[in-house]
Amino acid sequence: MLTGVQVLLLGGDARQLEVIRKLSELDAAVTVSGFDGLHTPLDGAVQAEFSEQLFDGIDALLLPAVGTDDHGVIHAVFSDREMRLLDEHIARMPKHSKVYAGMAKPYLRSLCEQNQIELVELFDRDDVAIYNSIPTAEGALMMAIQHTDITIHGSKSMVLGFGRTGFTMARTLQGLGAEVLVGVRRSEHFARAAEMGLKPFYISNLLAFTGNIDLIFNTIPTMIVTAQIIAKLPSRAVIIDLASKPGGTDFRFAEKRGIKAMLAPGLPGIVAPKTAGRIIADCLSQLIMDDSIKRGNGQ
Amino acid sequence: MLTGVQVLLLGGDARQLEVIRKLSELDAAVTVSGFDGLHTPLDGAVQAEFSEQLFDGIDALLLPAVGTDDHGVIHAVFSDREMRLLDEHIARMPKHSKVYAGMAKPYLRSLCEQNQIELVELFDRDDVAIYNSIPTAEGALMMAIQHTDITIHGSKSMVLGFGRTGFTMARTLQGLGAEVLVGVRRSEHFARAAEMGLKPFYISNLLAFTGNIDLIFNTIPTMIVTAQIIAKLPSRAVIIDLASKPGGTDFRFAEKRGIKAMLAPGLPGIVAPKTAGRIIADCLSQLIMDDSIKRGNGQ
Repeated sequence: MLTGVQVLLLGGDARQLEVIRKLSELDAAVTVSGFDGLHTPLDGAVQAEFSEQLFDGIDALLLPAVGTDDHGVIHAVFSDREMRLLDEHIARMPKHSKVYAGMAKPYLRSLCEQNQIELVELFDRDDVAIYNSIPTAEGALMMAIQHTDITIHGSKSMVLGFGRTGFTMARTLQGLGAEVLVGVRRSEHFARAAEMGLKPFYISNLLAFTGNIDLIFNTIPTMIVTAQIIAKLPSRAVIIDLASKPGGTDFRFAEKRGIKAMLAPGLPGIVAPKTAGRIIADCLSQLIMDDSIKRGNGQ
Repeated sequence: MLTGVQVLLLGGDARQLEVIRKLSELDAAVTVSGFDGLHTPLDGAVQAEFSEQLFDGIDALLLPAVGTDDHGVIHAVFSDREMRLLDEHIARMPKHSKVYAGMAKPYLRSLCEQNQIELVELFDRDDVAIYNSIPTAEGALMMAIQHTDITIHGSKSMVLGFGRTGFTMARTLQGLGAEVLVGVRRSEHFARAAEMGLKPFYISNLLAFTGNIDLIFNTIPTMIVTAQIIAKLPSRAVIIDLASKPGGTDFRFAEKRGIKAMLAPGLPGIVAPKTAGRIIADCLSQLIMDDSIKRGNGQ
């Protein structure tokens, strides 16, 4: 339980509703701002106007997936009022408290550093990244079904990268009956992909495997689907790039060649906001509970 | 090969392009009508204006998925000109020739009967229905991802019916990591579903299994998802009805209760026209070849 733990949650989207619900269930004292436009009541949370005083005595500050923008503005889909996170806000937080966000831009990072407040980037965590890879793979699958005139079953699909997202993407395609080639860099990934009945190849040989491909799912965040690769693809091929912006595809050349190529970041919040919210809520409540126990608040 | 075989293909959509391609490859003499609005050339086929003479001496008449409408009109997406199939057309066909369509309405059936011309309904065939169940299941999956705020992975999904489509739908959901309940009528279906790691139950007990369900995929073409069933579903549930029109769902009551329910017939031609076209083309060319061999034309 989180009885006695003070949490301030600012802005966000439908995912934050799951976080609020979960923290309230665990009996945390939750104050929220940025939900004034929401028509349904927030059970167990106190809505407040954004102000400096909100930061006094809190144990945790929860920010949305992208934290703040480069100027400190906190995105809030359920509010028209601007919230801008400034040094004077973070300065009021107790030294034991932490800031939690999906990820952080340099602005938020330096704010926390200056005030010696620990910043936790949830999407960096392996567990969160693996859970998030499920809605990401389903979103990518939906796009693949929409943008091809063939079935995924029986298609020749290529997944580039065999990390947290690449692994899930490959398994998802395999589950639907696609022939799945997986581009890897490490020999242990090659072995694991082979064990799973996938068709691994080394990325260094990518060009040699690019002939007769229906779909490419890229998860590698450096330029990998280059003009040279795209030139060898059949014109029916579709590229879905799941790497963080700006992706790893030469989109300009793909357009020139008339090959469909799409950058698809942030799929979990789009295709499955409830599941994505639960992933954040489960991880967050565990972390806050661990902190609380460490501080000797017991359970 | 189909050398010397005369085929007349009238109307249709992108699927027919695959049929034309395949038959031309096999060296059939293919005459088509209803493609005058198409911008790409039809390799190997002769385009002709719709007229009585086209029916003289043909071995096979190929109609679109739905055959004709109730007045004989043949749907053609690539043409603005009306083609209406009349008794005088079928009367000109040689007695050994056959009419092939996806399915046939009474109008087409009686036209063929009157003229003693055999009518083959391709979608009735088990092999075609099984192949078509693949794009159907992928289309249903796409709709499920679009219309829920959770992932299919970890969802509690129910498939009603374990025939050609139900079987594929259940396997597809299982491949993505859903918990899959399958409503069956026959004990051998119960056994097979259990063997596959699905959770079978008898349809007679449907009401008892309807409590905590995220998704229902119905494949049974009689009223089965009744008001009584819908009343027991959680409000988040989504119903996707894959049975032929009018489906097996009380859509009026679902709307009244605010539960999303969608009738989704004809998915193969929508989500994967190329694959759907190949399914028809492969089956059709085999059937025409078998007929040709029977007539002693050899291969």
